[in-house]
Amino acid sequence: MSAMTPTADAPRSPGRPRSVRADEAIIDATLDLLAEGNTIEAISVEAIAARAGVGKATIYRRWPGKDALLRDALRTLKGGQPELSGRSVRDDLMLLLGAVGHNIDPRAARIMPCLVPAVNRSPEQYELYQNIIEPRRELMREVLRRGVRAGELRADLDIEVTLAMLTGPMLVQRMLRWHPDLDEATLPEKIVDGVLEGIRPR
Amino acid sequence: MSAMTPTADAPRSPGRPRSVRADEAIIDATLDLLAEGNTIEAISVEAIAARAGVGKATIYRRWPGKDALLRDALRTLKGGQPELSGRSVRDDLMLLLGAVGHNIDPRAARIMPCLVPAVNRSPEQYELYQNIIEPRRELMREVLRRGVRAGELRADLDIEVTLAMLTGPMLVQRMLRWHPDLDEATLPEKIVDGVLEGIRPR
Repeated sequence: MSAMTPTADAPRSPGRPRSVRADEAIIDATLDLLAEGNTIEAISVEAIAARAGVGKATIYRRWPGKDALLRDALRTLKGGQPELSGRSVRDDLMLLLGAVGHNIDPRAARIMPCLVPAVNRSPEQYELYQNIIEPRRELMREVLRRGVRAGELRADLDIEVTLAMLTGPMLVQRMLRWHPDLDEATLPEKIVDGVLEGIRPR
Repeated sequence: MSAMTPTADAPRSPGRPRSVRADEAIIDATLDLLAEGNTIEAISVEAIAARAGVGKATIYRRWPGKDALLRDALRTLKGGQPELSGRSVRDDLMLLLGAVGHNIDPRAARIMPCLVPAVNRSPEQYELYQNIIEPRRELMREVLRRGVRAGELRADLDIEVTLAMLTGPMLVQRMLRWHPDLDEATLPEKIVDGVLEGIRPR
């Protein structure tokens, strides 16, 4: 049992420091409140403390304020970066697209879309959101630059537009189930090949 | 003044039937409640009636239930279909992409993303959402089929994946402001040309 991650109602695990358990309970309470449909503005440090079963002071000892706590909580929703093969640009883009919108925590599907209005209203929230997605965007940029250097991609490639061309279709399908008949399992390969080859006759 | 659309607090316009004014107030109240962050499940016919200043019976005389009312309210958020030129596939795709995620009512930006969790939970909501977007998808499909027939696009084109490749990047930018440095005004042209030509050297 000691290898399992303790949850709020798991039996007390004596090997795990109390402070780590409190951190996890606080992050968990924040995500629960967001997943229940509460907006970022509506959630207070008081409400998070009450849900986590800790005092407000416990939260302020760990985070300077609500925004820093939210940033950490939202970061935990994202899985790790995928491991790139470094073989062909096609292989690596397929790996990266397979991870787009693929969040480990099931609460992410409820939380992420509803953040959008807050993100568009507040420069701070927009920066938070950009900080979360920028590392993945940078990884894809590096793969594209490598492809240009190797002659696999056109020399005049618009890297930023290409990022959107690859990520956009995958994200709307994973997040919005935009099209009921598209198969998510084969979609990364179809998008990568479609974007690589174009839709005009060659 | 008689040409203006009356709003809830506009002076009574005697030329306009009372029933039309009530319809508009009910639709408006529904959109206001959604834009304030209330979920589809949380909104009741009672709450809509109270906000619109009408009785519940007035709503039930016009709509069989909450889902039908929500469908009509959400449909009003979408602007009309763009007028296609019919010249080249490139021209028509650019026109269609210019309209993606371009909603006339500013409440749409608050409402649409937050519908996603509800849409993914309930088959009825998912069908409602598909009914709203399917007419535009069909218009783009027709342009692509025309391009295949005219030899402007490859004969073996996967129409459904191509829809996602064109719409996805535009939608994430308009809805999520996915990338802070992309210029929305020139994005339709860049996406259409990128998808037409592909990113491999020709």
